[in-house]
Amino acid sequence: MIHKDHPRYESLKLRAMIVNAHKIGILADSGMIAHGRGEAFDYLISEKTSSNAIKAVKAAAAALLLAENPVISVNGNTAALVPEKIVKLAKEIPSQIEINLFYRTDKRINVIEKVLKNAGAENILGTNQDEKAIIKGLDGPRSYSSKNGIYIADVVLIPLEDGDRAEALTKLGKLLITIDLNPLSRTAKTSNITIVDNIVRAIPNLIKAIKELRDTDPLVLHVIVENFDNKENLQKTLENISKNYTGVNK
Amino acid sequence: MIHKDHPRYESLKLRAMIVNAHKIGILADSGMIAHGRGEAFDYLISEKTSSNAIKAVKAAAAALLLAENPVISVNGNTAALVPEKIVKLAKEIPSQIEINLFYRTDKRINVIEKVLKNAGAENILGTNQDEKAIIKGLDGPRSYSSKNGIYIADVVLIPLEDGDRAEALTKLGKLLITIDLNPLSRTAKTSNITIVDNIVRAIPNLIKAIKELRDTDPLVLHVIVENFDNKENLQKTLENISKNYTGVNK
Repeated sequence: MIHKDHPRYESLKLRAMIVNAHKIGILADSGMIAHGRGEAFDYLISEKTSSNAIKAVKAAAAALLLAENPVISVNGNTAALVPEKIVKLAKEIPSQIEINLFYRTDKRINVIEKVLKNAGAENILGTNQDEKAIIKGLDGPRSYSSKNGIYIADVVLIPLEDGDRAEALTKLGKLLITIDLNPLSRTAKTSNITIVDNIVRAIPNLIKAIKELRDTDPLVLHVIVENFDNKENLQKTLENISKNYTGVNK
Repeated sequence: MIHKDHPRYESLKLRAMIVNAHKIGILADSGMIAHGRGEAFDYLISEKTSSNAIKAVKAAAAALLLAENPVISVNGNTAALVPEKIVKLAKEIPSQIEINLFYRTDKRINVIEKVLKNAGAENILGTNQDEKAIIKGLDGPRSYSSKNGIYIADVVLIPLEDGDRAEALTKLGKLLITIDLNPLSRTAKTSNITIVDNIVRAIPNLIKAIKELRDTDPLVLHVIVENFDNKENLQKTLENISKNYTGVNK
């Protein structure tokens, strides 16, 4: 048991969720290591949502509202940490949900499908029963996508994604939104809109932004998306982290 | 299998060692997550040994050569990544080796004891048979130390250590040397000499420095230790990381 008054309660609570998800088969071993990398990068942004992240969230919400076929991609870490919030976000947009695993096994797909159903998801793509389409430029099970999901989507929200897959999806002309705590990752640089934040904070912020922008004129939404400069936003994020980083020890 | 020509071969090789160590019971779940944090911080120093790390290595080597009762503390991640190198370093100094686990269980102690024996260690402290002494200010199994090891040591090399334990050992008046990739961690700040580097590079560097300094006049060794300013060295490390960090995306 972790006590609520522990100074690192939030971080330790997430860690316990990840360890549990590994135990019940949601997470591959590498997913546990990936969470550790996330902890380190979250620490560097003081475990807080930055104003640059909020800018990216607003652009992402506008793009998702404008999308004709939006899809939210769910991997093991996302299913471990925010299953209910993902389902809520999908209903708000509305958007499809697709299970999309780097280390895809039938067993992991089944466990994650169950987690998402328990969280209230009705229609889930990317399951073992779903019809697959192959994404060009990727090999093996990593190349799978749902024929009615990511494969035909115009906008994909793909949190915590691998760099190769992000690049392959961009080449297919999709507008890519990612949530990645490492502003230097290939996924962060490749995506059209990168939210540098912990997924447990980013998804609720996205839900809020979707609600706020829902009745906005589509032309205005277009302007919000067009005016968002991902490269500039990442650069500012890096500069802010860098300031924090040298300041803490002084 | 990871191919040697993969751009991230070294990092992926270490990750595979960690996953294997978890499987055979060397590592607690949290050790796998800790490795992920290490990966992130190693990435920020470009996975290379800095000149500041070399300065710390030199001071550490001098302190270990001057020590009357030096002890090298070995936890799960250390046993997973560098068992042979730890044994080689212990013989070079010479120093005792003590198993020292945050999540101590008899089973983990036994597995790590076996790993160290296979790596050539002859006398290992902190085992289940070894006589324990309690370190003040710590609770439960975390407070254990060997009565003939860390408890009476004057200099302790304690890589990848928890902040509470580092503070408790400093309060006992021990000279603390740590290896920690996070220059902002409590352990990094608490220790007398902090080597901000990956343990797989730091231990071989320590062995080399011990060999180079072995025949040095003890008075000169004293000057090397006295002249090392850990706070200043950490601050310079942070500034260099910060430069790398904002530069990469430009």
